[in-house]
Amino acid sequence: METGFAFFMRSVANHPTLPTQLLSLTVSLSSSASTPPPLLYADTERSADALYFGRVGVPDPFIAFAAHGKKYAVVGALEFGRVKRRSAFDRVLALEPYMAKAREVWPQRKPGAAEVIFLLATELKQKSFTVPEDFPAGVYEKLFELGLDLTVATGPIFPNREIKTPAEITALREGNRCSALGIAAAEHVLRASKIKGRSLIFEGKPLTSERLKFAIESACLAAGAVSANTIAAGGDQACDPHERGSGPLRPNELIIVDVFPRVSATGYHGDMTRTFLRGTASDAQRALVAAVRAAQLAALKTIRAGVGGRTVHEAVVATFTARGYETKHSPKGSTGFFHGTGHGLGLAVHEAPGLSPRYDTPLRRGTVVTVEPGLYYPGLGACRIEDVVQVTATGHTLLSKSPYTWEL
Amino acid sequence: METGFAFFMRSVANHPTLPTQLLSLTVSLSSSASTPPPLLYADTERSADALYFGRVGVPDPFIAFAAHGKKYAVVGALEFGRVKRRSAFDRVLALEPYMAKAREVWPQRKPGAAEVIFLLATELKQKSFTVPEDFPAGVYEKLFELGLDLTVATGPIFPNREIKTPAEITALREGNRCSALGIAAAEHVLRASKIKGRSLIFEGKPLTSERLKFAIESACLAAGAVSANTIAAGGDQACDPHERGSGPLRPNELIIVDVFPRVSATGYHGDMTRTFLRGTASDAQRALVAAVRAAQLAALKTIRAGVGGRTVHEAVVATFTARGYETKHSPKGSTGFFHGTGHGLGLAVHEAPGLSPRYDTPLRRGTVVTVEPGLYYPGLGACRIEDVVQVTATGHTLLSKSPYTWEL
Repeated sequence: METGFAFFMRSVANHPTLPTQLLSLTVSLSSSASTPPPLLYADTERSADALYFGRVGVPDPFIAFAAHGKKYAVVGALEFGRVKRRSAFDRVLALEPYMAKAREVWPQRKPGAAEVIFLLATELKQKSFTVPEDFPAGVYEKLFELGLDLTVATGPIFPNREIKTPAEITALREGNRCSALGIAAAEHVLRASKIKGRSLIFEGKPLTSERLKFAIESACLAAGAVSANTIAAGGDQACDPHERGSGPLRPNELIIVDVFPRVSATGYHGDMTRTFLRGTASDAQRALVAAVRAAQLAALKTIRAGVGGRTVHEAVVATFTARGYETKHSPKGSTGFFHGTGHGLGLAVHEAPGLSPRYDTPLRRGTVVTVEPGLYYPGLGACRIEDVVQVTATGHTLLSKSPYTWEL
Repeated sequence: METGFAFFMRSVANHPTLPTQLLSLTVSLSSSASTPPPLLYADTERSADALYFGRVGVPDPFIAFAAHGKKYAVVGALEFGRVKRRSAFDRVLALEPYMAKAREVWPQRKPGAAEVIFLLATELKQKSFTVPEDFPAGVYEKLFELGLDLTVATGPIFPNREIKTPAEITALREGNRCSALGIAAAEHVLRASKIKGRSLIFEGKPLTSERLKFAIESACLAAGAVSANTIAAGGDQACDPHERGSGPLRPNELIIVDVFPRVSATGYHGDMTRTFLRGTASDAQRALVAAVRAAQLAALKTIRAGVGGRTVHEAVVATFTARGYETKHSPKGSTGFFHGTGHGLGLAVHEAPGLSPRYDTPLRRGTVVTVEPGLYYPGLGACRIEDVVQVTATGHTLLSKSPYTWEL
């Protein structure tokens, strides 16, 4: 995997995203006259904003901005032809001539993104831009010194990224179809596993979290999605919500399976969690699972445009409290329900809006959120159930589909 | 996949990374007395620095810094227990009490990361920090207003991240072993494909880039690594170096296979490219492949500590020029050799140092780089060959191993 001239700044990009069906998802850029146009310097793997803006995967940081109603990208030779053919940018400029000019203008320094941006802004007579909160401070500081007028957005730089178009909903349904295939693969493996004392035996060998994750991730891959960092954690491991799980899975223990693949063709995600138990559940385990599902249904009942994310979260908290499930924090960690109820889903796994105490702005119609209450009690085990919905004027539309059978 | 209170800033994290074998890779933090200690606000999927610093995967942005010789992390309840048990941080602090305090101190605003960092800095009497170039501008600007003294690093914030320890070399060899398994899977599928006119038929159906990528990515997954955005592009598609490839693959055409998986257990990458052709190559195709391999060998011959990345790149350019391969840029795109010769590899696919005209600083002993010349001519096709080496005092050590057989 090679890098181009764009690598003039320390790059920490992970992988390139080169979605092939993205252009059909292009969303027009709405901007008010009072707000300066957006300026980005990011790669599309780290910045969903950059992918949303240009609808083309670029694995190293590149310059993208709007000026006079047009979307511009500045990329090196390595990306130029492809971005020109494939992206939603109106103008694609070659980086190298601007770098050469920058070296002429500033012979004493090693010019980079900031100098190129400044030259372009001067050329286009665009004196001010809005940058996202995660705009790199190094470039921000240099542009400030050069005298460009930058405003840091106080919220999302593309507020409409929250509102999903019909094409985006199709892409998100596809993401959740891939999630469901992963969950189904896990269920299949668990059902096929034999109980032998304290072990689960699958195809002659002890079933581990690793083997279960492989089954899940293979199913996603076959469906055209990459599922990284899949969670398949049982027993006390599952009591750490971001623990992926390792080692043997046991019978009669709750196993959390959380699958959030990214569809390769579009870059959109699915996100789904089911909790399984192979063997026989105890009454306490059954009560735990019932409480989580009841909390999810209570949350779903409150969701509609205009309701605050906090209200949805409170429905979950109330359900747990009514059933006697306490949340406690100690120096060693927390037990009970100690995470948000959900988050926006799209080109990023976690994006706006949120369903948590910190979100009191009303949910907007057309946004997409996960609804995923959970309870975590070391000794007893943990349960989380997660689905994805689109917020409508009167309620919600479910975008994920998978059974809730759990005791196998 | 749920999110916690840490989601107080617009988050664009992609997936969580929760490596389980990372602690064994911990690198001690070297710092000079004259440089203020590091401060980060990032998630570990987007920021390899954050993963390098704390050796624990955290999917949402969190605060991490050093003060008085200790490494601190500030995380929400969702991450607290796990980070406390698993990370290389000396002190793990709960975010919630600091958020509550910030709301008391600044009742008029909605406090976030900046306010919490400021409270902590005051408490610890740490008045200045160094932040990486990609530190979020939103937090940077607020901290500036609050009066904290921040210096943006002009290069890598952890310059020693470039120098790989023996444990990191083991992890990188493992990454390249996974790459090689992916490449071998591709070779297997191509060899097993039957030539039928202008089609390649594999298991009864036309072989496509998508099917070849599935074979590669499945092989990586089975070996414990996630290969996202794998490239398997043939014919003119391969002439776009970052084109992943789609649709039918043809006999007698050069097919570029570039595999850069991330090992799930450690977060370290492999990166390897081979170019294949199923059928019979033309003389021009053979000359092209021979030139690329000769250029790679020429580059490898120049590599040793103290040599500049530019010198290595020039060895490639000289080889191509000597053999009559021209590089041209046009408004439609570029042909010939128009990307860098290589890049650093580690927790990120692209990191320092680089082998390109822009890198004249001498290569340091112990750094790891890819060596991947390529030639791209629509009509004739494209070839890239890539391996990974560690720079030594007298030359290099190859960290990747895979045959160079290409005409199948």
